[in-house]
Amino acid sequence: MHERSYAVLGTGAMGGYYGANLNRVGHEVHFLFHHDAEYVRKHGLRMESPNGDFELPKVYAYSAVKDMPRCDVVCIGVKSTHNHLLSELLPPVVKPGGSVLVMQNGLGMEEGIAPVVPECTVIGVQCYLCSNKVGPGHIRHIDYGRITMGAWGEPDQNRMEAIAADFRSAGIPADITPDLATARWKKLAWNIPYNGLCVVLDTTTDKLMNDPQARDLVTRILTEVVQGAQACGCDVADNYVNEMLEFTDKMAPYLPSMKLDYDAGAPMEIEYMYRKPLEAARRAGVELPHIGMLYDQLRFLAGQKPGCLSST
Amino acid sequence: MHERSYAVLGTGAMGGYYGANLNRVGHEVHFLFHHDAEYVRKHGLRMESPNGDFELPKVYAYSAVKDMPRCDVVCIGVKSTHNHLLSELLPPVVKPGGSVLVMQNGLGMEEGIAPVVPECTVIGVQCYLCSNKVGPGHIRHIDYGRITMGAWGEPDQNRMEAIAADFRSAGIPADITPDLATARWKKLAWNIPYNGLCVVLDTTTDKLMNDPQARDLVTRILTEVVQGAQACGCDVADNYVNEMLEFTDKMAPYLPSMKLDYDAGAPMEIEYMYRKPLEAARRAGVELPHIGMLYDQLRFLAGQKPGCLSST
Repeated sequence: MHERSYAVLGTGAMGGYYGANLNRVGHEVHFLFHHDAEYVRKHGLRMESPNGDFELPKVYAYSAVKDMPRCDVVCIGVKSTHNHLLSELLPPVVKPGGSVLVMQNGLGMEEGIAPVVPECTVIGVQCYLCSNKVGPGHIRHIDYGRITMGAWGEPDQNRMEAIAADFRSAGIPADITPDLATARWKKLAWNIPYNGLCVVLDTTTDKLMNDPQARDLVTRILTEVVQGAQACGCDVADNYVNEMLEFTDKMAPYLPSMKLDYDAGAPMEIEYMYRKPLEAARRAGVELPHIGMLYDQLRFLAGQKPGCLSST
Repeated sequence: MHERSYAVLGTGAMGGYYGANLNRVGHEVHFLFHHDAEYVRKHGLRMESPNGDFELPKVYAYSAVKDMPRCDVVCIGVKSTHNHLLSELLPPVVKPGGSVLVMQNGLGMEEGIAPVVPECTVIGVQCYLCSNKVGPGHIRHIDYGRITMGAWGEPDQNRMEAIAADFRSAGIPADITPDLATARWKKLAWNIPYNGLCVVLDTTTDKLMNDPQARDLVTRILTEVVQGAQACGCDVADNYVNEMLEFTDKMAPYLPSMKLDYDAGAPMEIEYMYRKPLEAARRAGVELPHIGMLYDQLRFLAGQKPGCLSST
């Protein structure tokens, strides 16, 4: 069996979680850090998890792609607000004919990434993970972790199966969908209403759900996401709206990632989470006025707060 | 000529301005105060205005309607968030066959007020006034002041002309419209986008206008107001959207009244400014999704902040 080498571009709560788990069971993993490479070279990576804590005292940690070897599989762990950097970061670290895993929320990231690595196979990965970075090289896994992989363009089933097997060997449930767009839209159905409204209304998911008026607004936005998905030919049933409401009712009070970013003055993933879905729906002949309004409100708020507006 | 006596229910920035000007030129005016009656009985009313400052050392000031005489004309100066109080406040102060001037922003206030005073003539008054209450019995007039009166139900032209003449005698431009609903909707066209968005986005009118995305959102909301007005049979041209944008471009940076109320933890005039227009449009067969979303957002924010939710 060919042993695949992995690169993680952006070792945060998400890239760090998956990379560390792959590394722990013996896969070769090269981690790119923004700030913490030197610290991690000295102290290693540390994982807290309900599945068991562990430490990796020695890892390959880099602060620049020029120092990294080319790998078979590159996991994109940066936020989509930094995708404009990938034309520089990505080509030097992926082997010709290698694989790129786009492990981001949103829609249409692959359209921008694929032309940067024309000889590679681009695979969209939807991550269902709840984790935080709590310090340099220190990840706290809260819950979940499953990934769903879907081909961008022509599917290479053997390649996806092999990569999924690597993740499963690391204890990460991994499945392959024949329909990436549907998986993306289904995740957006949660992200679009809750991320945006928690930022605009400065609140948490439970408060939205417990207020009859806000709950009705969430429902209308969810309904628009489903309309957009259906217009784009995705297999999302009308009743998915109720599934998402029930799912969120059962969640603990939660600050979505965009709210954390906004409060921290960090860029918000507005473009791939709002603009791209709006554009896709519009191309399919459907206007989504509530989502359009939320997008405009988020853009305005981002523009008023230095740091929150993505440069993409 | 019959001399009309006036009552002002709610002597704030608006009721105080009109009542003081009527009183200054010799009309009999009885002022109801929430807190300041005793102070004003001792110290009178004080007006600062670009048209000339003045003081009224002796005015009729009351803290309860039971102490007030019945008057020919009652000016409703309370905010629409307090209209549920009018069934108690209004009947004791208006003469049988008297007039009630509904000097409030919004739509449909008269529907609730008219049944409370079945023997009176209810007149809607749209006020174009910029003023503040800066202390007990102390009003600062900033600009404007014109009123537009319109009959609720069967018009009594002579009555309206006589009251308009009283206001004009006090230096207040007053005209009579045959179409109250159109006047109400035209004022709503400004109030609906700017009040709501300044609260939800925590900002001022100039910042909305200078941000391309927010400006586009304002434009879409304005367009919906015009659609609602037209569906209700009002004479508002499509180009009114551009008129409002140009008007606001020329304004100084401005905190709309609803934003001042929200920041102060006071009730916001959400019901008559948002819910009633939405209902009127819906009855006319038109949905206004952006305005509906703004309404839900405002209701949510009001519910999260003690004091901001009207009890109506």
